[in-house]
Amino acid sequence: MTSSRMIAGLVLAIAVSGAASGQERGQAETAVAAADAAWEHAYAAKNLEKSVADCDQNVSLLWPNMPVVRSKADVRAAIAKDFAGGDLAWHSTAVGVARSGDLAYSVGTYQWKLRGGSGKGSFDKGKYLTVWKKQADGSWRVLFDTFNSDLPAGG
Amino acid sequence: MTSSRMIAGLVLAIAVSGAASGQERGQAETAVAAADAAWEHAYAAKNLEKSVADCDQNVSLLWPNMPVVRSKADVRAAIAKDFAGGDLAWHSTAVGVARSGDLAYSVGTYQWKLRGGSGKGSFDKGKYLTVWKKQADGSWRVLFDTFNSDLPAGG
Repeated sequence: MTSSRMIAGLVLAIAVSGAASGQERGQAETAVAAADAAWEHAYAAKNLEKSVADCDQNVSLLWPNMPVVRSKADVRAAIAKDFAGGDLAWHSTAVGVARSGDLAYSVGTYQWKLRGGSGKGSFDKGKYLTVWKKQADGSWRVLFDTFNSDLPAGG
Repeated sequence: MTSSRMIAGLVLAIAVSGAASGQERGQAETAVAAADAAWEHAYAAKNLEKSVADCDQNVSLLWPNMPVVRSKADVRAAIAKDFAGGDLAWHSTAVGVARSGDLAYSVGTYQWKLRGGSGKGSFDKGKYLTVWKKQADGSWRVLFDTFNSDLPAGG
Protein backbone atom coordinates (compact mmCIF):
# COMPACT_ATOMS: atom_id res chain seq x y z
CA MET A 1 0.00 0.00 0.00
CA THR A 2 1.40 3.42 -0.93
CA SER A 3 1.56 6.29 1.52
CA SER A 4 -1.02 8.22 -0.47
CA ARG A 5 -3.48 5.32 -0.34
CA MET A 6 -2.99 4.98 3.42
CA ILE A 7 -3.58 8.71 3.87
CA ALA A 8 -6.64 8.50 1.61
CA GLY A 9 -7.94 5.63 3.74
CA LEU A 10 -7.44 7.60 6.95
CA VAL A 11 -9.14 10.69 5.48
CA LEU A 12 -12.05 8.47 4.34
CA ALA A 13 -12.31 6.99 7.84
CA ILE A 14 -12.47 10.49 9.34
CA ALA A 15 -15.08 11.54 6.73
CA VAL A 16 -17.23 8.45 7.45
CA SER A 17 -16.94 9.14 11.17
CA GLY A 18 -18.15 12.70 10.47
CA ALA A 19 -21.04 11.44 8.36
CA ALA A 20 -22.09 9.09 11.15
CA SER A 21 -22.44 11.99 13.58
CA GLY A 22 -25.97 12.76 12.33
CA GLN A 23 -27.07 9.27 13.39
CA GLU A 24 -25.09 9.57 16.64
CA ARG A 25 -26.81 12.87 17.32
CA GLY A 26 -30.22 11.29 16.77
CA GLN A 27 -29.26 8.57 19.24
CA ALA A 28 -28.03 11.21 21.71
CA GLU A 29 -31.35 13.09 21.41
CA THR A 30 -33.21 9.86 22.11
CA ALA A 31 -30.97 9.26 25.13
CA VAL A 32 -31.63 12.77 26.50
CA ALA A 33 -35.39 12.39 25.99
CA ALA A 34 -35.17 9.05 27.83
CA ALA A 35 -33.18 10.64 30.67
CA ASP A 36 -35.82 13.39 30.92
CA ALA A 37 -38.62 10.78 31.03
CA ALA A 38 -36.71 8.66 33.58
CA TRP A 39 -36.27 11.70 35.84
CA GLU A 40 -39.98 12.43 35.51
CA HIS A 41 -40.86 8.83 36.44
CA ALA A 42 -38.58 9.00 39.50
CA TYR A 43 -40.26 12.28 40.43
CA ALA A 44 -43.78 10.95 39.87
CA ALA A 45 -42.91 7.94 42.07
CA LYS A 46 -41.41 10.36 44.66
CA ASN A 47 -38.22 8.32 44.55
CA LEU A 48 -35.88 10.75 46.34
CA GLU A 49 -32.67 8.72 45.89
CA LYS A 50 -33.14 8.38 42.12
CA SER A 51 -34.38 11.98 41.70
CA VAL A 52 -31.25 13.32 43.41
CA ALA A 53 -28.92 10.82 41.69
CA ASP A 54 -30.12 12.05 38.28
CA CYS A 55 -28.50 15.42 39.07
CA ASP A 56 -24.91 16.28 38.10
CA GLN A 57 -22.54 16.89 41.02
CA ASN A 58 -22.49 20.59 40.02
CA VAL A 59 -26.26 20.88 39.56
CA SER A 60 -28.11 24.18 40.05
CA LEU A 61 -31.88 24.23 40.52
CA LEU A 62 -33.24 27.59 39.35
CA TRP A 63 -36.72 27.26 40.81
CA PRO A 64 -39.27 30.04 41.31
CA ASN A 65 -39.62 31.97 44.58
CA MET A 66 -36.38 30.77 46.13
CA PRO A 67 -32.68 31.42 45.64
CA VAL A 68 -30.64 29.06 43.42
CA VAL A 69 -30.25 25.62 45.02
CA ARG A 70 -26.76 24.17 44.55
CA SER A 71 -25.35 21.61 46.99
CA LYS A 72 -26.57 18.01 46.81
CA ALA A 73 -27.87 18.33 50.40
CA ASP A 74 -29.90 21.41 49.47
CA VAL A 75 -31.05 19.73 46.23
CA ARG A 76 -32.27 16.75 48.26
CA ALA A 77 -34.14 19.05 50.65
CA ALA A 78 -35.72 21.03 47.78
CA ILE A 79 -36.90 17.88 45.98
CA ALA A 80 -38.23 16.36 49.22
CA LYS A 81 -40.19 19.59 49.85
CA ASP A 82 -41.54 19.39 46.29
CA PHE A 83 -42.66 15.80 46.86
CA ALA A 84 -44.47 16.80 50.07
CA GLY A 85 -46.14 19.79 48.42
CA GLY A 86 -48.05 18.01 45.70
CA ASP A 87 -47.90 15.94 42.54
CA LEU A 88 -45.80 17.07 39.61
CA ALA A 89 -45.87 15.64 36.11
CA TRP A 90 -44.08 16.84 32.99
CA HIS A 91 -43.18 15.80 29.49
CA SER A 92 -40.59 17.11 27.08
CA THR A 93 -41.69 18.68 23.79
CA ALA A 94 -38.18 19.12 22.35
CA VAL A 95 -34.60 18.10 23.05
CA GLY A 96 -31.36 19.26 21.47
CA VAL A 97 -27.81 17.97 21.74
CA ALA A 98 -24.51 19.69 20.90
CA ARG A 99 -22.60 18.11 17.99
CA SER A 100 -19.98 16.96 20.49
CA GLY A 101 -22.63 15.07 22.47
CA ASP A 102 -21.55 16.43 25.88
CA LEU A 103 -24.23 19.09 26.47
CA ALA A 104 -27.97 19.00 25.78
CA TYR A 105 -31.27 20.60 26.71
CA SER A 106 -34.85 19.46 27.09
CA VAL A 107 -37.89 21.73 27.18
CA GLY A 108 -41.50 20.87 27.86
CA THR A 109 -44.60 21.46 29.91
CA TYR A 110 -45.58 20.57 33.47
CA GLN A 111 -48.74 20.18 35.53
CA TRP A 112 -48.61 20.55 39.26
CA LYS A 113 -51.39 19.54 41.70
CA LEU A 114 -50.86 21.09 45.11
CA ARG A 115 -51.64 18.88 48.11
CA GLY A 116 -54.78 19.87 49.98
CA GLY A 117 -55.31 22.91 47.76
CA SER A 118 -58.66 23.95 46.41
CA GLY A 119 -59.74 26.60 43.92
CA LYS A 120 -57.10 29.12 42.97
CA GLY A 121 -53.61 28.02 43.92
CA SER A 122 -54.44 24.32 43.88
CA PHE A 123 -53.21 23.80 40.34
CA ASP A 124 -50.34 25.16 38.33
CA LYS A 125 -49.10 24.57 34.82
CA GLY A 126 -46.15 25.94 32.95
CA LYS A 127 -42.96 25.17 31.07
CA TYR A 128 -39.47 24.05 31.98
CA LEU A 129 -35.95 24.07 30.61
CA THR A 130 -33.37 21.51 31.70
CA VAL A 131 -29.70 21.52 30.67
CA TRP A 132 -28.09 18.07 30.68
CA LYS A 133 -24.42 17.11 30.99
CA LYS A 134 -23.13 13.79 29.74
CA GLN A 135 -21.26 11.84 32.40
CA ALA A 136 -18.06 9.81 32.02
CA ASP A 137 -20.17 6.61 32.06
CA GLY A 138 -22.27 7.87 29.12
CA SER A 139 -25.38 8.69 31.18
CA TRP A 140 -26.98 12.14 31.17
CA ARG A 141 -27.52 14.15 34.36
CA VAL A 142 -29.22 17.45 35.18
CA LEU A 143 -26.84 20.43 35.24
CA PHE A 144 -29.54 23.14 35.38
CA ASP A 145 -33.26 22.85 35.90
CA THR A 146 -35.68 25.75 35.81
CA PHE A 147 -39.39 26.34 35.26
CA ASN A 148 -42.12 28.91 35.63
CA SER A 149 -45.89 29.16 35.50
CA ASP A 150 -48.02 29.97 32.47
CA LEU A 151 -50.74 31.31 34.80
CA PRO A 152 -51.15 35.01 35.65
CA ALA A 153 -49.09 36.24 38.62
CA GLY A 154 -50.83 35.84 41.95
CA GLY A 155 -53.23 33.28 40.39
CA MET B 1 9.10 10.02 4.41
CA THR B 2 7.81 6.55 5.26
CA SER B 3 4.11 5.76 5.50
CA SER B 4 4.41 5.19 9.22
CA ARG B 5 5.99 8.63 9.73
CA MET B 6 3.25 10.26 7.66
CA ILE B 7 0.58 8.47 9.70
CA ALA B 8 2.37 9.46 12.92
CA GLY B 9 2.41 13.06 11.71
CA LEU B 10 -1.30 13.00 10.94
CA VAL B 11 -2.11 11.44 14.33
CA LEU B 12 0.05 14.11 16.02
CA ALA B 13 -1.80 16.83 14.09
CA ILE B 14 -5.14 15.43 15.27
CA ALA B 15 -3.82 15.22 18.87
CA VAL B 16 -2.57 18.84 18.77
CA SER B 17 -5.91 19.92 17.34
CA GLY B 18 -7.57 18.15 20.30
CA ALA B 19 -5.22 19.83 22.76
CA ALA B 20 -6.04 23.25 21.28
CA SER B 21 -9.74 22.76 21.93
CA GLY B 22 -9.31 23.80 25.58
CA GLN B 23 -8.11 27.22 24.44
CA GLU B 24 -10.84 27.38 21.78
CA ARG B 25 -13.39 26.54 24.43
CA GLY B 26 -12.12 29.34 26.66
CA GLN B 27 -12.46 31.72 23.70
CA ALA B 28 -16.00 30.41 23.04
CA GLU B 29 -16.94 30.98 26.71
CA THR B 30 -15.64 34.54 26.45
CA ALA B 31 -17.69 35.02 23.26
CA VAL B 32 -20.88 33.72 24.92
CA ALA B 33 -20.34 35.95 27.97
CA ALA B 34 -19.84 38.88 25.58
CA ALA B 35 -23.04 37.98 23.67
CA ASP B 36 -24.92 37.83 26.99
CA ALA B 37 -23.54 41.25 28.00
CA ALA B 38 -24.31 42.71 24.56
CA TRP B 39 -27.91 41.49 24.78
CA GLU B 40 -28.16 43.05 28.24
CA HIS B 41 -26.83 46.37 26.95
CA ALA B 42 -29.35 46.35 24.08
CA TYR B 43 -32.07 45.58 26.62
CA ALA B 44 -30.93 48.28 29.05
CA ALA B 45 -30.92 50.79 26.16
CA LYS B 46 -34.39 49.50 25.13
CA ASN B 47 -33.02 48.92 21.64
CA LEU B 48 -35.83 46.77 20.23
CA GLU B 49 -34.19 46.00 16.85
CA LYS B 50 -30.97 44.76 18.45
CA SER B 51 -32.77 42.92 21.26
CA VAL B 52 -34.86 40.98 18.73
CA ALA B 53 -31.95 40.48 16.32
CA ASP B 54 -29.95 38.78 19.09
CA CYS B 55 -32.52 35.95 19.06
CA ASP B 56 -32.14 32.83 16.91
CA GLN B 57 -34.80 32.38 14.22
CA ASN B 58 -36.16 29.43 16.26
CA VAL B 59 -36.06 31.24 19.61
CA SER B 60 -38.45 30.37 22.44
CA LEU B 61 -38.95 32.77 25.35
CA LEU B 62 -40.02 30.80 28.42
CA TRP B 63 -41.08 33.74 30.56
CA PRO B 64 -43.19 33.63 33.74
CA ASN B 65 -46.97 34.08 33.72
CA MET B 66 -47.45 33.66 29.99
CA PRO B 67 -47.34 30.84 27.46
CA VAL B 68 -44.11 30.18 25.54
CA VAL B 69 -43.37 32.97 23.04
CA ARG B 70 -42.05 31.66 19.73
CA SER B 71 -42.48 33.68 16.52
CA LYS B 72 -40.25 36.69 15.89
CA ALA B 73 -43.36 38.92 15.79
CA ASP B 74 -44.48 37.64 19.21
CA VAL B 75 -40.90 37.92 20.53
CA ARG B 76 -40.81 41.54 19.39
CA ALA B 77 -44.15 42.24 21.10
CA ALA B 78 -43.04 40.52 24.34
CA ILE B 79 -39.77 42.46 24.49
CA ALA B 80 -41.52 45.75 23.68
CA LYS B 81 -43.99 45.07 26.53
CA ASP B 82 -41.02 44.33 28.83
CA PHE B 83 -39.39 47.64 27.87
CA ALA B 84 -42.62 49.53 28.62
CA GLY B 85 -43.10 47.76 31.96
CA GLY B 86 -39.89 48.80 33.65
CA ASP B 87 -36.12 48.63 33.72
CA LEU B 88 -34.36 45.27 33.62
CA ALA B 89 -30.68 44.65 34.27
CA TRP B 90 -28.84 41.35 34.53
CA HIS B 91 -25.36 39.89 34.58
CA SER B 92 -24.12 36.38 33.96
CA THR B 93 -22.42 34.47 36.75
CA ALA B 94 -21.43 31.44 34.65
CA VAL B 95 -21.29 30.33 31.04
CA GLY B 96 -20.60 26.92 29.53
CA VAL B 97 -20.00 25.81 25.96
CA ALA B 98 -20.23 22.34 24.41
CA ARG B 99 -16.90 20.92 23.17
CA SER B 100 -18.18 21.31 19.61
CA GLY B 101 -18.74 25.03 20.16
CA ASP B 102 -22.26 25.08 18.70
CA LEU B 103 -24.38 25.16 21.87
CA ALA B 104 -23.87 27.10 25.11
CA TYR B 105 -25.63 28.41 28.19
CA SER B 106 -25.37 31.44 30.41
CA VAL B 107 -26.85 31.78 33.88
CA GLY B 108 -26.99 34.79 36.15
CA THR B 109 -29.07 37.17 38.20
CA TYR B 110 -31.45 39.99 37.28
CA GLN B 111 -32.96 43.05 38.91
CA TRP B 112 -36.21 44.46 37.63
CA LYS B 113 -37.65 47.89 38.52
CA LEU B 114 -41.31 48.15 37.58
CA ARG B 115 -42.45 51.44 36.11
CA GLY B 116 -44.59 53.52 38.44
CA GLY B 117 -44.62 50.79 41.07
CA SER B 118 -44.21 51.42 44.75
CA GLY B 119 -43.76 49.17 47.75
CA LYS B 120 -44.45 45.48 47.13
CA GLY B 121 -44.49 44.60 43.47
CA SER B 122 -42.30 47.52 42.41
CA PHE B 123 -39.10 45.50 42.46
CA ASP B 124 -38.20 41.98 41.50
CA LYS B 125 -34.99 40.02 41.49
CA GLY B 126 -34.19 36.50 40.43
CA LYS B 127 -32.14 34.28 38.17
CA TYR B 128 -32.13 33.39 34.49
CA LEU B 129 -30.94 30.66 32.17
CA THR B 130 -30.26 31.36 28.49
CA VAL B 131 -29.35 28.72 25.89
CA TRP B 132 -27.28 30.06 22.99
CA LYS B 133 -26.88 28.68 19.48
CA LYS B 134 -23.87 29.54 17.34
CA GLN B 135 -24.83 30.96 13.96
CA ALA B 136 -23.26 30.26 10.55
CA ASP B 137 -21.46 33.63 10.79
CA GLY B 138 -19.88 32.68 14.14
CA SER B 139 -22.10 34.92 16.28
CA TRP B 140 -24.17 33.57 19.17
CA ARG B 141 -27.93 34.04 19.39
CA VAL B 142 -30.57 33.22 21.99
CA LEU B 143 -32.32 29.88 21.43
CA PHE B 144 -34.11 29.74 24.82
CA ASP B 145 -34.44 32.36 27.50
CA THR B 146 -36.13 31.81 30.84
CA PHE B 147 -36.12 33.35 34.29
CA ASN B 148 -38.01 33.42 37.57
CA SER B 149 -38.16 35.40 40.78
CA ASP B 150 -36.22 34.73 43.97
CA LEU B 151 -38.96 36.52 45.95
CA PRO B 152 -41.84 34.69 47.70
CA ALA B 153 -44.91 34.03 45.53
CA GLY B 154 -47.43 36.87 45.56
CA GLY B 155 -44.75 39.29 46.85
